[in-house]
Amino acid sequence: MEELEQLFAFCREIDKEKLITRQTYISNAKRKENDAEHAWHVAIMAILLSDYANEKIDVLKTVTMLLIHDIVEIDAGDTYAYDEEAKKTQKQRETAAADRIFGMLPKKKADDLRGLWEEFEQRQTPEAKFARVMDNLQPMMLNVATNGKAWEEHEVHLQQILDRNKATKDGSQILWDYAMEKFIAPNVKNGKIKK
Amino acid sequence: MEELEQLFAFCREIDKEKLITRQTYISNAKRKENDAEHAWHVAIMAILLSDYANEKIDVLKTVTMLLIHDIVEIDAGDTYAYDEEAKKTQKQRETAAADRIFGMLPKKKADDLRGLWEEFEQRQTPEAKFARVMDNLQPMMLNVATNGKAWEEHEVHLQQILDRNKATKDGSQILWDYAMEKFIAPNVKNGKIKK
Repeated sequence: MEELEQLFAFCREIDKEKLITRQTYISNAKRKENDAEHAWHVAIMAILLSDYANEKIDVLKTVTMLLIHDIVEIDAGDTYAYDEEAKKTQKQRETAAADRIFGMLPKKKADDLRGLWEEFEQRQTPEAKFARVMDNLQPMMLNVATNGKAWEEHEVHLQQILDRNKATKDGSQILWDYAMEKFIAPNVKNGKIKK
Repeated sequence: MEELEQLFAFCREIDKEKLITRQTYISNAKRKENDAEHAWHVAIMAILLSDYANEKIDVLKTVTMLLIHDIVEIDAGDTYAYDEEAKKTQKQRETAAADRIFGMLPKKKADDLRGLWEEFEQRQTPEAKFARVMDNLQPMMLNVATNGKAWEEHEVHLQQILDRNKATKDGSQILWDYAMEKFIAPNVKNGKIKK
């Protein structure tokens, strides 16, 4: 009963992820998406696209990682991919958040989810590398669907996207090639992404 | 390349699930949640609570089922659990939606996800039974967190909740007992759920 109380307290707490707004617009371009919506979206994408990972991945592990990868933002807030100032304090803010939020769980489950979050952050395992591909390609796909709205608003340059995606090919060469051809190149050409 | 085009077209299409509003309020009680947020929430709950299933379940299968279980509502809309009139046409509307939306995928993946959706609807396998427990307990948990707001607005009666949950114990006796004691009984006592 004590364990169930802790599990439900955690499940209630993470409801707050629905309030964390990201910089990406949903496909109708009328509002920005939130972290919970984003996590749902990348989890499904991982299931559908797992065949395209460079290395064989454990899909449940990857999906779990993606479902929880932004939970720390409940305390730490969303750090926009191209906000260099906020990124300086990001690690410290997110580590404190992980301590508090995963710490609400029973010990074994706290260790499991905390471990998966750290694995995602460290980008070393096949699952973490592929999860990062999903985390990068999903907003790119939505940017294309909204005619580059968030790219334009933030005056994003091609080099920023390339820097952010420098490890994307390590998770999936095929998906990186696809993204370059279908998402990035046309939007450099039409000026939505600055050169 | 053709397969990737189909997969990304589907991934873009399901973004619309973020626009389907449910009747449940998120935990700050300020707005209702949408289907994508709900699916994310129940998927994490399934991972954390799977030990409490009556029968051993395949967690990835259950999570996948939960992530996609409301995709048909993109076309069919959300049918409120206690709207008896809308429920009369629900099956027909949702089947047409499944044809169209899952039909966007490459054949093998379309069959897989469509099959999982039907399995969820039929509530026969251990995974479908447990997924249904999550689908029922998550809004109950949020109703409790919001002091019964949606229950009060819809003047929900205990008997409606019991009818809707008549198979919940078949998925998890422990979680059903917990929900009765912690979620339902106190809210019958304080009048948020009508007798």
